[in-house]
Amino acid sequence: MTSIADLIDEIYNKSLEAREIISKYAHRTPVDISATFSKMSGSKVYLKYENLQKTGSFKIRGALYKVYRVKDSARGVVAASAGNHAQGVAYAARSFGLPAIIVMPVTASITKVEATKSYGAEVVLHGTIYDEAEAKAREIAEKQGYAFIPAFDDPDVIAGQATLGHEVLEDVKDFDIVVVPLGGGGLASGVSIALKKRRPGVRIVGVEPANVPKFSLSLKAGHPVTIRAKSTIADGLAVKRPGEITFKIVRELVDDIVTVSEDEIAQAIYLLLERGKVLAEGAGAASLAAILSGKVRGAQGRKVVALITGGNIDLTMLNRVLIRGLSFAGRIATLLGYVPDKPGMLARVAAIIGSHRANILEVLHDRSDVHAPPWHTVLRIIVEVPSREETKKILRDLRQEGFEFHVVNS
Amino acid sequence: MTSIADLIDEIYNKSLEAREIISKYAHRTPVDISATFSKMSGSKVYLKYENLQKTGSFKIRGALYKVYRVKDSARGVVAASAGNHAQGVAYAARSFGLPAIIVMPVTASITKVEATKSYGAEVVLHGTIYDEAEAKAREIAEKQGYAFIPAFDDPDVIAGQATLGHEVLEDVKDFDIVVVPLGGGGLASGVSIALKKRRPGVRIVGVEPANVPKFSLSLKAGHPVTIRAKSTIADGLAVKRPGEITFKIVRELVDDIVTVSEDEIAQAIYLLLERGKVLAEGAGAASLAAILSGKVRGAQGRKVVALITGGNIDLTMLNRVLIRGLSFAGRIATLLGYVPDKPGMLARVAAIIGSHRANILEVLHDRSDVHAPPWHTVLRIIVEVPSREETKKILRDLRQEGFEFHVVNS
Repeated sequence: MTSIADLIDEIYNKSLEAREIISKYAHRTPVDISATFSKMSGSKVYLKYENLQKTGSFKIRGALYKVYRVKDSARGVVAASAGNHAQGVAYAARSFGLPAIIVMPVTASITKVEATKSYGAEVVLHGTIYDEAEAKAREIAEKQGYAFIPAFDDPDVIAGQATLGHEVLEDVKDFDIVVVPLGGGGLASGVSIALKKRRPGVRIVGVEPANVPKFSLSLKAGHPVTIRAKSTIADGLAVKRPGEITFKIVRELVDDIVTVSEDEIAQAIYLLLERGKVLAEGAGAASLAAILSGKVRGAQGRKVVALITGGNIDLTMLNRVLIRGLSFAGRIATLLGYVPDKPGMLARVAAIIGSHRANILEVLHDRSDVHAPPWHTVLRIIVEVPSREETKKILRDLRQEGFEFHVVNS
Repeated sequence: MTSIADLIDEIYNKSLEAREIISKYAHRTPVDISATFSKMSGSKVYLKYENLQKTGSFKIRGALYKVYRVKDSARGVVAASAGNHAQGVAYAARSFGLPAIIVMPVTASITKVEATKSYGAEVVLHGTIYDEAEAKAREIAEKQGYAFIPAFDDPDVIAGQATLGHEVLEDVKDFDIVVVPLGGGGLASGVSIALKKRRPGVRIVGVEPANVPKFSLSLKAGHPVTIRAKSTIADGLAVKRPGEITFKIVRELVDDIVTVSEDEIAQAIYLLLERGKVLAEGAGAASLAAILSGKVRGAQGRKVVALITGGNIDLTMLNRVLIRGLSFAGRIATLLGYVPDKPGMLARVAAIIGSHRANILEVLHDRSDVHAPPWHTVLRIIVEVPSREETKKILRDLRQEGFEFHVVNS
């Protein structure tokens, strides 16, 4: 049995080869300091924009190297995934001229199915959960002589993900901490190996959703455990059990593991969009969420690199993130009040709202509320407002006109 | 009077100095090929991500160089702007340690006012339109001995914007066409000068909103004319009259000018987000809109660079873009039908919708529609659906259960 040190050496050496391969087929994604997030956090925050990677995520790195390694012995490749790994393997297979079959659960989003097909892969929809899709994929591999491409628990895949670490080392000088999201642990393992080999003093902080704390709980147990996961917006991190290999590497090399809440992740997505001008998926925003929520110990005044690992978020989900973010920011307000139920009342209320450059999104009348004074109606108005201060002015002006409203969504 | 050739030479020479200055204070923004947009358009599409620039737009370039030029003679700087120029000048002034006053119309968005203040500038709210703000700014300049920093019609500002052209020249090999948005014409002038001097064979295509075609109409008239502008999502291009200098340069160097519709711009914002993972404002997406709508002549099979000039779009506006984009894409559907007005009906309808993984956003009952059969209600249901195909299946299943619905938003 290989020792952990030997395994790390093996993967590190592979990662040097992986760099050569991957540089021919993937983007070298940009990395830059963010003045905004540095100011907000008190650290010098660098963002590595892996959401601008081909296929929209880092997964292509591990897939490219793994497919490269099997391409001469396998007739094709097969993988199971509902997410970024599917697109990564499809893209990698096409890069090396191999056929690919991707098994996705029937619940996979149409967007991801279409994206995977667009890279030339055959998509087989099977099962409702990942485990069923994986069983099917392994069956196909066996039957057709295709190589099964694991999503994370594999030395080649980990060596591919390590290339992200090499790029950070080359493009950012003297950083102190790298914050990396924890799904199955492939990226965290690879990046840790690349960094610790070359800069042992760098601290690695892993981040997982509080709703899916598989590494936190497994490390406490001393071995990989299967957890009961709640749903998370960081669907890319919704893995119920660490890999056997990745568990060992993460335990050995990752210095600290923190969890982030759903709202912290959503807020990071919102801020990356509003201030950073880039779209991150939940998993991709988790590292910044950890930094902004002050959970990365020792980060004050230090140079911290956050890996923005992917941008494949469904836009209907982004729509929810936006509305929730705007509401938290006081830019969408729900006003509730009683008004006399007679002609002209809404016009007066709406005129006051409009005079403050607030745009009405929705109006609801409710005449069934027995707490309302007789012959009054409840008026519930959702508005976009320039700011919280302007909302206060709206309430003040409404009051002066005899309309008592209050804000109910903050 | 300087000839146009001399003016171009003068600005070109300044732009070489501007590069040195600007490289110290601004990001060198990434540029890369987009596989997605190349496939969609039939060109090799490169995107220059100037939305990732500090302050979120290219405006910082002209501002930096202009402030650099006046810094030794002026006690401070003053500018008028409701948009990106405000932040650019504020940032530039702070970079050189000068006080800045920015006059913004009272209608300026709070986000932009706050952003401008965050760069250390004093913000004066004055007037309801740009012209009033500018008059006030010039008055302040006069009174306080501050230098007025024009937004576009100035050789130094144009030389600063030209640095974007220099970066494209250095980072993209052998491109054929550059597509540049036309606001006041400062960017188009600068980029054209940098490119035509060094690569005369490159074609420059200017893009303006069909709702604000000031350059198209002015070129037809043979001189700058003030147009009646309609509102546009590309608010950064909502300039009613070309500059005197920029008009001459654009007429001399820009090869072609095209206009794009509001929906074409909105669709480009949507696609940049969904497929490109970056946030562009309307002006920033206009160049891609022109490419994707097939309006850039001779682009087929050629290497085309689109300047994504900025990302400062208000997120409430982005929310509208998303909802409209999702509706165009068939991902949000409004279903309308009559159902018997009795208990259990909505449950049956909702169960069918839910079984197709469609998520109900809104339900509206209307019992006042006299076209409904007696004792029926209109049911209007807005749903998020996986795809257009799934919506058809929902309608089919509803029909099988006796509910006749149709889609009204496509």
